[in-house]
Amino acid sequence: MQILLTVAYDGTGYAGWQRQTNGIAVQQVMEETLARLLSQNVTLRSASRTDAGVHAQGQRAAFFAEEMKIPLNKLPDVVNAALPPDISVSAAEVVADGFNPRHAKSKTYIYQIRNAKHPDPLTGRYSAFVKCALDIGAMREAAAHILGRRDFSAFRAATPDNAAQSPVREVYSCEVGSCEISGGRQVTITVAGNAFLYNMVRIIAGTLVYAGLGKISAGEMPGIIESGDRTRAGKTMPPQGLTLMEVVYGNTGPNAGGRK
Amino acid sequence: MQILLTVAYDGTGYAGWQRQTNGIAVQQVMEETLARLLSQNVTLRSASRTDAGVHAQGQRAAFFAEEMKIPLNKLPDVVNAALPPDISVSAAEVVADGFNPRHAKSKTYIYQIRNAKHPDPLTGRYSAFVKCALDIGAMREAAAHILGRRDFSAFRAATPDNAAQSPVREVYSCEVGSCEISGGRQVTITVAGNAFLYNMVRIIAGTLVYAGLGKISAGEMPGIIESGDRTRAGKTMPPQGLTLMEVVYGNTGPNAGGRK
Repeated sequence: MQILLTVAYDGTGYAGWQRQTNGIAVQQVMEETLARLLSQNVTLRSASRTDAGVHAQGQRAAFFAEEMKIPLNKLPDVVNAALPPDISVSAAEVVADGFNPRHAKSKTYIYQIRNAKHPDPLTGRYSAFVKCALDIGAMREAAAHILGRRDFSAFRAATPDNAAQSPVREVYSCEVGSCEISGGRQVTITVAGNAFLYNMVRIIAGTLVYAGLGKISAGEMPGIIESGDRTRAGKTMPPQGLTLMEVVYGNTGPNAGGRK
Repeated sequence: MQILLTVAYDGTGYAGWQRQTNGIAVQQVMEETLARLLSQNVTLRSASRTDAGVHAQGQRAAFFAEEMKIPLNKLPDVVNAALPPDISVSAAEVVADGFNPRHAKSKTYIYQIRNAKHPDPLTGRYSAFVKCALDIGAMREAAAHILGRRDFSAFRAATPDNAAQSPVREVYSCEVGSCEISGGRQVTITVAGNAFLYNMVRIIAGTLVYAGLGKISAGEMPGIIESGDRTRAGKTMPPQGLTLMEVVYGNTGPNAGGRK
């Protein structure tokens, strides 16, 4: 049977979700922990391959269990007792064998920015720091242009192995929130879509920061997107501001298997 | 001249504020950084000696500068560029030579608790975890009994060197806040007072947790306080939930020197 887990982690100390040769990945820690507890080999497939330093509140990861010695409703507690404190499982459910956790209906990320005169160690672990005052209205105007099904080549990091992949993705929503904090404000960009290209959310955040700093105007956004030119969008924001919040599936039951 | 700094830190990796022989203290890192930048020996005196693992948003620490080569309004940026990311200075001001940062008019701490079915790595660094549901109303009723000028012996950790110290402190306010989060709620206990005994806020938090779990009733609180018996109050909650938020002084000017 296939088991789907909901997983949270502080990505600070990890080389990302996916197993790496140059550092400890969240996948590796979880696979080794599950293998020890269940006395079987475990391979996890996740909804998203979060990068080094990126966090997750609602990552999903599935594995096939030969037999479950641990009752499913006890599994999170048993696994959490064995995991380090920076990784935690909040739910476990049985899904169809044909279900693939990559095929989500929707994924939601937040990108957090401390926009203040001085950095703050207590939010810095989960936020980027921007010292110059951001124009939130300008960021919101720019964000409105990102919605819809588009070729997001301008918001994709160039890597050797992604040239063949389609750059078309659909962004359902992109909202810019702001709340007052001591010495400045905390800005939260919330982006939901069907799927995201490599570094896409961090480049969206960087482009909205450029809009907030007046380096680009909202009116330039359609041209930047249509150009497909990565050099015209903003810089890639640092990983610690990014958190995968939620993954929603259309169907995890007997008929699951494809994109719904 | 004497300089008063406002300091924030993530206490996770430190042996507390005060210099220790068995670990790196925040004081040591700051003193060494300031000494290097200012080319003089620096001794910091703080408002509070926070324990190992305790955080601060608004700690205050003062030192005597022989001559200031760095303009005061640039000092936070210069110091922050040299400090590790888990310590940050948000303000620097000149205070009277007679000013003593220990003599505050008011200090405010928060104690944060994740009250949910499962731990969360993204709040766990700054919160204690309590699995059983807490009765917030019962915690608030118990908290009301802590207010005022009292002998807080029942809320003081026994240490060899505090027996001579007066156990009388004044608590100005003690509020229990609660907000819904995924899978449970985040409970924040905010305590303000003129000064606190060793471990006092963590023991207050532990006693309010006992009230929230039904282990003690609000009606028992006066008896517990009057008894002066540490064993009748709740357990000492873990350090990571505690953050020193704010220190307020009555007078930092030419006539400063005593408690105002």
